[in-house]
Amino acid sequence: MRILLVGGTGTLGAALHKELAGRGHEVLTVARNGGDLRYDVTDPAQVGAMYAQAGRLGAVVSAAGHVPYKPVIEMTTQDYLDGFRGKALSQIELVRQGIPHVAERGSFTLITGILAREPIVTGSAASMANGAVEAFARAAAVEIAPQRVNVVSPAVFTESLTAYAPFFPGMEPVDLSRVAQAYVRSVEGAQTGQIYTL
Amino acid sequence: MRILLVGGTGTLGAALHKELAGRGHEVLTVARNGGDLRYDVTDPAQVGAMYAQAGRLGAVVSAAGHVPYKPVIEMTTQDYLDGFRGKALSQIELVRQGIPHVAERGSFTLITGILAREPIVTGSAASMANGAVEAFARAAAVEIAPQRVNVVSPAVFTESLTAYAPFFPGMEPVDLSRVAQAYVRSVEGAQTGQIYTL
Repeated sequence: MRILLVGGTGTLGAALHKELAGRGHEVLTVARNGGDLRYDVTDPAQVGAMYAQAGRLGAVVSAAGHVPYKPVIEMTTQDYLDGFRGKALSQIELVRQGIPHVAERGSFTLITGILAREPIVTGSAASMANGAVEAFARAAAVEIAPQRVNVVSPAVFTESLTAYAPFFPGMEPVDLSRVAQAYVRSVEGAQTGQIYTL
Repeated sequence: MRILLVGGTGTLGAALHKELAGRGHEVLTVARNGGDLRYDVTDPAQVGAMYAQAGRLGAVVSAAGHVPYKPVIEMTTQDYLDGFRGKALSQIELVRQGIPHVAERGSFTLITGILAREPIVTGSAASMANGAVEAFARAAAVEIAPQRVNVVSPAVFTESLTAYAPFFPGMEPVDLSRVAQAYVRSVEGAQTGQIYTL
C-alpha cells in the first residue's frame, strides 16, 4: 500500500523505510530536510499542506518527535509547550487532519516511548508528551473506526545505546528490527487502539 | 497542615474542602471566582502570582481542569491546545512553580480521570490531557523527592450522574467520599508517583 512515513530520515525512520519498502509498500517520506516531501509537522498548517500534496494513502506512520530534556526545576512553561507541540500535538494533527486522506480501513501508527511508563531524570516533558499521545490514540480509535490508530512505545534502541545508554540504566534496549515489526503489525494487521510496548 | 486547594468551588473542590478542613487542616481555596485567592491557573503567570500570595504550604491539591468535548472530526488544533492548557499545563505549572513554596516533604495531588485509560466518544482531548498529567507526575516524582506528587484518577462521580450518566455507559461511578480519601492518602501519607484509580 501507499504509506506516508513521517520522520523518514532519522534512525527509526530509516529502519522503517527499509522494512516497509522491503515488504512491497510504496513509501513516501516526510522530513524537514531530505524527505520526499519537506514539511515540519510541528506546524499544524504544514500538516495540512503535506496531506494535500501526498494524495490518497493506505497508512500513515510516524517516527518523528522532539521534546526538551531538562530537570523539572530547569524547565520553563515554554519547554512544556514545546514538548507538547513537538511530539504530542504534531502526532494528534497527523491523525485529525489525515482522516480524509487515508483509506477506509487505513491506519495511523504513532511513536511514543518507555518514558510514558518509566520515568528518568530530565524526562518529564518526554513522559508528558508520550502519555498524551497514548491516551489520545486510545480515545481516537473508538471514533475513527473503521480507520485505525495504534502507538509503538519502545525502550531505547539497541542501535542508539552508544549515545543514550547512560540515560536508561538497567532498562533493556530493543532492536530496531523488533520496533519495525510493531509498525508492520499496526499497518498490515487489523488492530486499533493498541499501545505496543517493547 | 496549610493546604492550597485549587478549584475549590466545584463539586469535587467543595467535597475536598469539607474533608480536609474536617481533618484539621487549614485550607486556602483558589478559584477564578469565589475562592480565598482569585486566580486562573490556566495562565502560568497567574500561577506565580498565586504562590507569591499564598505563602508557605504543606500541600497543594488540585481539583481543577477544563477540556473541550467534541468528536475528533470536529476538534480543531486550538481545541487540543486549549485542552492541554486547561488541564495539563495548568497542573504541571502548579508543580513546577510550586516547588519553592511547598514543605520539604510536602505534596502535590493532581486530578485526571478514567478517560486516561477508558475512551468515550468526544473525549479525545480529555484523554490526552489526563494521559499527559499522569505520565508527567510519574516523571516529576523521581526528581522532586522528598517532595511528592500523586494523581487521583476517578470515574464519574455518583453525585454527578444526573448530568453525566449518558457519557459513561456501564462505567461504575465513584462516590465523592472515596475520591476525597484518595487525596487524603496522598496528602497525609508518604507515597509519591502514584496514580490512584477509582
